[in-house]
Amino acid sequence: MFNKKIAIVGSGNVAWHLSEIFNEKTIEVTEVCSRNQEEAKKIATAIQAKHIKKLKNIGENADLIILAVSDDAIEKVCKKLKCKNKIVAHTSGIANTQLLKACSKNFACFYPLQTFTKYHKVDFSQIPVLISANNIETENTLKDLANLISLKVEVISDIQRQKLHLSAVIVNNFTNHLYTLSSNYLAKNTIDFELLKPLIQETVNKISSNNPKVNQTGPAKRNDVKTIEKHFNLIEDEDLKEIYKILTLSIYTTHNE
Amino acid sequence: MFNKKIAIVGSGNVAWHLSEIFNEKTIEVTEVCSRNQEEAKKIATAIQAKHIKKLKNIGENADLIILAVSDDAIEKVCKKLKCKNKIVAHTSGIANTQLLKACSKNFACFYPLQTFTKYHKVDFSQIPVLISANNIETENTLKDLANLISLKVEVISDIQRQKLHLSAVIVNNFTNHLYTLSSNYLAKNTIDFELLKPLIQETVNKISSNNPKVNQTGPAKRNDVKTIEKHFNLIEDEDLKEIYKILTLSIYTTHNE
Repeated sequence: MFNKKIAIVGSGNVAWHLSEIFNEKTIEVTEVCSRNQEEAKKIATAIQAKHIKKLKNIGENADLIILAVSDDAIEKVCKKLKCKNKIVAHTSGIANTQLLKACSKNFACFYPLQTFTKYHKVDFSQIPVLISANNIETENTLKDLANLISLKVEVISDIQRQKLHLSAVIVNNFTNHLYTLSSNYLAKNTIDFELLKPLIQETVNKISSNNPKVNQTGPAKRNDVKTIEKHFNLIEDEDLKEIYKILTLSIYTTHNE
Repeated sequence: MFNKKIAIVGSGNVAWHLSEIFNEKTIEVTEVCSRNQEEAKKIATAIQAKHIKKLKNIGENADLIILAVSDDAIEKVCKKLKCKNKIVAHTSGIANTQLLKACSKNFACFYPLQTFTKYHKVDFSQIPVLISANNIETENTLKDLANLISLKVEVISDIQRQKLHLSAVIVNNFTNHLYTLSSNYLAKNTIDFELLKPLIQETVNKISSNNPKVNQTGPAKRNDVKTIEKHFNLIEDEDLKEIYKILTLSIYTTHNE
């Protein structure tokens, strides 16, 4: 049983998802605060927490304050908190936990590694939660909390978490951008992007059983210059040409060295 | 009912998948031929077709010859065929159908848009099959055949199919390479790539309801220079640095113009 009370600062995607899963697991969230008063009120109401209007008043009825705010806001928020050395944890993949030193002796990161969309529920049990804390008691508290909502809890250093965050950007932001480039290209040529969706799904299915390197196929890997040239001539956009060139070269190098 | 008989040339991934799905749908494959005799024999045996050892002998008991061979091999195979103007179709996304003019008056492309792995069955009904043919009778025959195995059959010009193939390379080969780069990076830093899999799956889930452009998030889109610099400093490999730079710039440009 987890008998600590939680205050959440923030009202964005991560704040919403954490408030929902905590509520579902009957973990008590007592307070919610955000500069977006309306969204904070919505979240507080949904989980029967108190909506706190001013940052300086948050944490009165909580043992643990979670800052689910944007990276840029962490320092600012931290300075306004009156924590009295309660545990303070941010949820950022990239921000140093040391940022929180200014507001508490017990600080940490509680990073759920997923791309969240408000109101779109996901299976939280499968989402890795990465914990970094500045002392063992804080670490244990956050591990206990994380274990209640996820089956994949790990303690990890700041620098390792940041490397993971970089990798998350590569496999999420960058691949999604490739989908966008491809979708834009097809739209210009009046071809339906839907046609690619089974392929996109199967590309992901394949990494469940194999290392992605094993799954690589295509003209770049086998140095099929004829096909590469044909493709190149089918691209008008200079930006896409450049991306095609650099990724093709990188695939070739990775598989032929 | 489809009462035409099929000969398959090739014994790779596409040949195996087509032979399996044709057999499942009781579409008669009478002959299988490949320069890889052993693999051709395996396929022929599995679906009770005749294993033909020499190309010049294929098609005697068939109305339609499907060339499921590599792009480079299409022309060579075509020259050796004795087709007597039976329908000849290749399965390549990128090769011109005109290549087949040399061996028949009735030529086409029958392109199943998917990444295939031998012995790993997929739901063929969801795989788009793109047809290009040089006359309406050939087109209709191939449409009839395609409709028996897939719910997503379209007639498309050579050039449109090639543009689709380019897009397939972007969303499959290129994204899989990003998985590889990320997996290699994490391995070097002794971090488990498994941690990224829920994120990778959710990235794909999100395009089922939204245009990928709408789903874009991350430091590049919001021009979060601090995070981008941090990431950049976490990369040692020059190749990955270059890819990070060019994709970050492209995301920024796409979303801030």
